[in-house]
Amino acid sequence: MEKEISQAVIRRMPRYYRYLGELLDDGVERISSNELSTRMRVTASQIRQDLNNFGGFGQQGYGYNVKYLYTEIGKILGLDTKHPMIILGAGNLGQALANYVDFEKRGFKLVGIFDVNPVLEGIAVRGIEIQMLSELPLFMKENLVEIAVLTLPKNKAREMADILIQNGVKAIWNFAHVDLDTPDDVIVENVHLSESLMTLSYNLSKYRQEHIIDES
Amino acid sequence: MEKEISQAVIRRMPRYYRYLGELLDDGVERISSNELSTRMRVTASQIRQDLNNFGGFGQQGYGYNVKYLYTEIGKILGLDTKHPMIILGAGNLGQALANYVDFEKRGFKLVGIFDVNPVLEGIAVRGIEIQMLSELPLFMKENLVEIAVLTLPKNKAREMADILIQNGVKAIWNFAHVDLDTPDDVIVENVHLSESLMTLSYNLSKYRQEHIIDES
Repeated sequence: MEKEISQAVIRRMPRYYRYLGELLDDGVERISSNELSTRMRVTASQIRQDLNNFGGFGQQGYGYNVKYLYTEIGKILGLDTKHPMIILGAGNLGQALANYVDFEKRGFKLVGIFDVNPVLEGIAVRGIEIQMLSELPLFMKENLVEIAVLTLPKNKAREMADILIQNGVKAIWNFAHVDLDTPDDVIVENVHLSESLMTLSYNLSKYRQEHIIDES
Repeated sequence: MEKEISQAVIRRMPRYYRYLGELLDDGVERISSNELSTRMRVTASQIRQDLNNFGGFGQQGYGYNVKYLYTEIGKILGLDTKHPMIILGAGNLGQALANYVDFEKRGFKLVGIFDVNPVLEGIAVRGIEIQMLSELPLFMKENLVEIAVLTLPKNKAREMADILIQNGVKAIWNFAHVDLDTPDDVIVENVHLSESLMTLSYNLSKYRQEHIIDES
C-alpha cells in the first residue's frame, strides 16, 4: 500500500491540512481545486495529482467537500490516533514545544518532560512535572511512549537516543544539531534550525549578488 | 552566476558545513570524498556533484582540504558577513532562538527583541532588552536590520510582516503557522513545526500499516 508516495508529496499534505482547517473555521463547506489552488498558490493540477495518490476525494463539477477532505487527510497523517510523547530537554525550546496547545489537539499527547538540570526537577510545565533524565528508562518501562522529542545538546542527544531506542521508542523528533544513528524501524524527523537559517542566509547573499550584477 | 543551483543542493550545503566543522574540531586537515561520503551517508558522487556546482574544491588524489572547504562553504552560505537580526515574539521559542549562541558565531547578530506583552518590557535576553512591538517601525528607521525572526501567533505575524517589509527588512525567518504575502525581493524561510510533526506522524502510521501487512 501507498509505498510509492514520495516524501515531497507527504511533506505537502500537512499544508493541505492547514488550509482546509482554515476553510472549515471560515465556514466553507466545499471548494473547487481551482479555488484551493489560488489560495495555496500551487497549480490545480498539482493538487489533483497530490490527492490522487491517496485515492482522489474530489467529484467532477462539485469540487472537494472541505470537512471530508480535512478528516481524510487527518487520517492519512495519523492524526486520528493518540500519540503519547515525551520531551527530553526542558530548556526554552523544550518548554516552547510543551506549551504548544495545537499539538495536543492533533493527538500528540505530552506524557513526560525530562532534563539533566536538578534545578528544574519537579517544576510543572502544562501540568507535567519535569523529571530527571536518569529516570527515563524506568519511565519508559512503565508508560507507553511513542514519540520522543530531543531538544538536548548534541552529545547528550546521541546517548539519549540510544536509551530511547533500547526502551522501544518508535519515533524521534530531533532538534539536536546532529544526525542520529537509528535502526530502520525508528522514524526520525530532523529539525535543524541552524541549517534553515543558513539556507535563508544563502538565498539572501545570492539575491544580493544578482541584484548587484543587474545594476552593473 | 549560480542561478541554476537547485534548492535541494542549497539545503544540503549547511550539512556539509556542519560535518566539516566537526572534522576541523577533531583536527582533521584533509579528507577524501569517499571518507566524507561514509561519514555523511551520501554517495561520494553526490558530494562531488554538489560541490561542483560551486566550482569543485577537490584535488584528484588529495581529497578536500577541510579548513579551505569549510571556509569556502561558509562564504557560499553568506556566513562571512554580519547579519543584523531581530526577533518578534519573546515567548519560549523567541527566547530559545535568542539564546542560541551558535547563531552569533555564524554572523547572525541579534540587535532587538520585541513582544506585545507589557510584562516582558525591559527584561533582558542575552543583554538585549525586550521592547514593545509598537516601537518596531521607529527601531527599524534608526537601526540596520536585515533578518526578522517571526515567532508570533499567525494573525499578528501577517500584520508584523507588512510593517517589516515597509521598513525595508530583507529576509523573514517565519515560525508562524501561516504563509506570508511578501514581495519577490524579500526572502522567506519557513519553519512550520507542526507540519514537521505531522510528517513524522505520517511516516509512523505508514510504517505501522506496512508492518501489520507483513505479518498477515
